[in-house]
Amino acid sequence: MKRVLITIQYDGTNYSGWQKQPEAKTIQGEIEDAFFVATGQKIELFGSGRTDAGVHAIHQTAHFDFDLPIPIDKLPEIINNRLPQDIAVVDAKEVAAAFHARFSIKKKQYLYKILITDHKQPFAANYYGFVKKDLDEKKMQECANVLIGTHNFRGFCCSATSAANFERTIFDIKVKRKNKREIDVLVTGNGFLYNMVRIIVGTLVDYSLGKVTLEQVYDALNNANRASAGQTMPPNGLYLNDTIY
Amino acid sequence: MKRVLITIQYDGTNYSGWQKQPEAKTIQGEIEDAFFVATGQKIELFGSGRTDAGVHAIHQTAHFDFDLPIPIDKLPEIINNRLPQDIAVVDAKEVAAAFHARFSIKKKQYLYKILITDHKQPFAANYYGFVKKDLDEKKMQECANVLIGTHNFRGFCCSATSAANFERTIFDIKVKRKNKREIDVLVTGNGFLYNMVRIIVGTLVDYSLGKVTLEQVYDALNNANRASAGQTMPPNGLYLNDTIY
Repeated sequence: MKRVLITIQYDGTNYSGWQKQPEAKTIQGEIEDAFFVATGQKIELFGSGRTDAGVHAIHQTAHFDFDLPIPIDKLPEIINNRLPQDIAVVDAKEVAAAFHARFSIKKKQYLYKILITDHKQPFAANYYGFVKKDLDEKKMQECANVLIGTHNFRGFCCSATSAANFERTIFDIKVKRKNKREIDVLVTGNGFLYNMVRIIVGTLVDYSLGKVTLEQVYDALNNANRASAGQTMPPNGLYLNDTIY
Repeated sequence: MKRVLITIQYDGTNYSGWQKQPEAKTIQGEIEDAFFVATGQKIELFGSGRTDAGVHAIHQTAHFDFDLPIPIDKLPEIINNRLPQDIAVVDAKEVAAAFHARFSIKKKQYLYKILITDHKQPFAANYYGFVKKDLDEKKMQECANVLIGTHNFRGFCCSATSAANFERTIFDIKVKRKNKREIDVLVTGNGFLYNMVRIIVGTLVDYSLGKVTLEQVYDALNNANRASAGQTMPPNGLYLNDTIY
């Protein structure tokens, strides 16, 4: 039996998120099915974490065990041939039997892409969070700096979470203006709660727009008060950008 | 009662095509619903033609009748506020009572976007037809020139069609290399049969790849022989680009 770690890229638009569900197209389901159709062997795929419906991945990772005489460097091609065009296995490598795609992770990085526009842009809709008024990237970075560090992030978490422990460490948040209409936010942490990145980015946006004060951000952070943090940005601007082991 | 013609742009990825269906998200259904939610009045939308699931529109048109005291130049905003971000009404104007979005049309133009790539590109998957080997745009144009004119296009039509008359006029086909990896094909005609543009582009591609000969193209055209034409390209590279009245 070998344990293999695969790296996956996907456009999440057509899928009901990462996690397998009956009656729904999911990334995990498509990859497990593709492997089964290609090899006749059932696998169970363990992702570095779930992504929600409409969320994309530039670099997602997942491990599985298998005992077929297939060279590991041939696995991407074999699986890709059975996968839809909007999901790609870009790498595969053998890892130790004790390695776990979720529990062995050291850092995870998300990218959130913001488009500043006051009119509809249908072909950008699935790939950006839209904001109507211009943003000040310096103010956003100032707010972001408050969040860096180890905190109880319950105030930056969707109430539908099943988490018991709300302590997470954010190593870094970088707010970067790409051009007149685009701002990227890169958030790196040791792990994230349900909707945490989308609420963090919504808080930076709402702080820049004057809808949330720094006092409210501290209240959300120190008193686990979700009502004091900003809006939850839509899923389609969010990309799992890197997983580091 | 006023008749109004609206111009619509949409990313077709999330929809089961233009035409309203029970139990499915469609462009026509979304716009009719948005108008009803915004105004309380039911309308029936008549499109310039249907687009299939996954097909996009840069410029689609549709008419409807209504008798509310709403200025026509306010209609786009009113409808857009109730529409998803991937559908936009970009214009509205009053037309004569005898005008019909489908039957008054003089020319229709489709754009097909080809990406030449030998590896998967998930974020281009919903917006291009992929071809693995390089294409010769001059050969493609040579083949396209055979198809320009008024012909029986039964050989370039999906057998599932309900059409009775297969004569159509193609005014122009332009094959344009945009860069090393992208080729655009613009097809302008007085109307198109089911899958006709996708089969025309598939024939240009297969001729360039040496899979179809000019003799076969003539056979498809003169003997209505679908088997002699090329492949049907996937829907996601196809864009309704213009409608001319």
